[in-house]
Amino acid sequence: MRVWKTVPPWMERRRALGGKDLGFVPTMGALHEGHASLAARCRRESETSVASIFVNPSQFNDPRDLDRYPRTLETDLELLESLGVDEVLAPTVNDLYPMGYCFRVEAPEEAASIMEGFHRPGFFQGVMTVVLKLLNLVRPGRAYFGEKDYQQLRVITEMARDFFLPVEIVPCATVREPSGLAMSSRNRLLSAEGREKAASLYRTLTGASDSTQAKAMLEMEGFQVDYVEEHWRRRFAAASLEGVRLIDNVPLPKE
Amino acid sequence: MRVWKTVPPWMERRRALGGKDLGFVPTMGALHEGHASLAARCRRESETSVASIFVNPSQFNDPRDLDRYPRTLETDLELLESLGVDEVLAPTVNDLYPMGYCFRVEAPEEAASIMEGFHRPGFFQGVMTVVLKLLNLVRPGRAYFGEKDYQQLRVITEMARDFFLPVEIVPCATVREPSGLAMSSRNRLLSAEGREKAASLYRTLTGASDSTQAKAMLEMEGFQVDYVEEHWRRRFAAASLEGVRLIDNVPLPKE
Repeated sequence: MRVWKTVPPWMERRRALGGKDLGFVPTMGALHEGHASLAARCRRESETSVASIFVNPSQFNDPRDLDRYPRTLETDLELLESLGVDEVLAPTVNDLYPMGYCFRVEAPEEAASIMEGFHRPGFFQGVMTVVLKLLNLVRPGRAYFGEKDYQQLRVITEMARDFFLPVEIVPCATVREPSGLAMSSRNRLLSAEGREKAASLYRTLTGASDSTQAKAMLEMEGFQVDYVEEHWRRRFAAASLEGVRLIDNVPLPKE
Repeated sequence: MRVWKTVPPWMERRRALGGKDLGFVPTMGALHEGHASLAARCRRESETSVASIFVNPSQFNDPRDLDRYPRTLETDLELLESLGVDEVLAPTVNDLYPMGYCFRVEAPEEAASIMEGFHRPGFFQGVMTVVLKLLNLVRPGRAYFGEKDYQQLRVITEMARDFFLPVEIVPCATVREPSGLAMSSRNRLLSAEGREKAASLYRTLTGASDSTQAKAMLEMEGFQVDYVEEHWRRRFAAASLEGVRLIDNVPLPKE
């Protein structure tokens, strides 16, 4: 496995890879089984598998959240190596933002005005800008994204289509702990007790009869709820526990 | 020469071209000798030369300007064919904006706040968005842009670098009529008399001792002046004659 900590040598490497069929898994590190399943699938389906590890400052509206975001580079690299990933990009902020956060992709009205877009101003701008940059650097045939970040997956899929990016955005099912808790890098910021409690986010989303009830149940459990909303035949929630913001979504039962 | 009036068959064609070295000349049609020189150079330097003809609505802040913009598709195609261009994209607005003007590239502060960015709100957003789309559709090794639109050339060059687009942006010298008038699709909207008078834009930019003097001289000649400004060791102007907005720029004499 080759690890690229700066961009220019990676660009040279990419040229050398030429017309090979690349698969790509962009991550912010602090890898868990969700990422592992993306990387494993990427490896199965691609001639050359590429992952990136980059905690993208431009998508954090809360600097404290950025500071606290877990960083576990050495363990991450061991995991990716064990999965047979071929190339890893782990660039610095200066490398990915050589001119600062200057050119930006603006989110469409819908994405900016609901759920993550509404509650995290600038979030989708930051996500789309960095994903566009990474896709241009890697130029993969397929890029793999988890359905836990369903709204993000949707926006990226639309951006790729609208900008005619020559890539297929591959949606991958959320990986969950046995308790139902969606795998997330932020879970490791929870106490053991918090982690147990957090599982009720999934249970409530699945079991509640509607969004209002789900919100009330979560608040009774001690969550601070940003939103529970239904779109595209799914139910979405963002809620904090012990100051850690978690998101999840589930398909609505068929009528 | 193959002409593609819709996007999906072009995408198939682009896949068939595979790893060939493409050169690209994006235009808004109403072609003149300036475009011809870009296309000829593109053809000389590229295995396959591609041009596009697309009057991009998203970069027009004035709907009247968009309506009046000259459209001469059949003559344009004859010219490109005579120059040996291989492939021409002439897509519809719906083809290039399948979701409407929805995802947008936002201009950096500097570009948005001076000259064309200041006087044509939204102009650079529209230009960058359509250029990004076209570059993704064509995936050329080099794209050719004229220095008449110097600020635009500069912004596109920076966007390509900042977004890591795998393309070289090639600046090409402004082509001028014997009178000095910079070739422009808008020139054909001028009367014979206006066209003669328009040549003083270049003469004034070159001859005036500073921007203030240049502005005063142009106003005396009957131009409505948007700006005369100096940046990057060049002098720039935008000014209207007979309601037709012209721009030009010249290098400042060395001290």
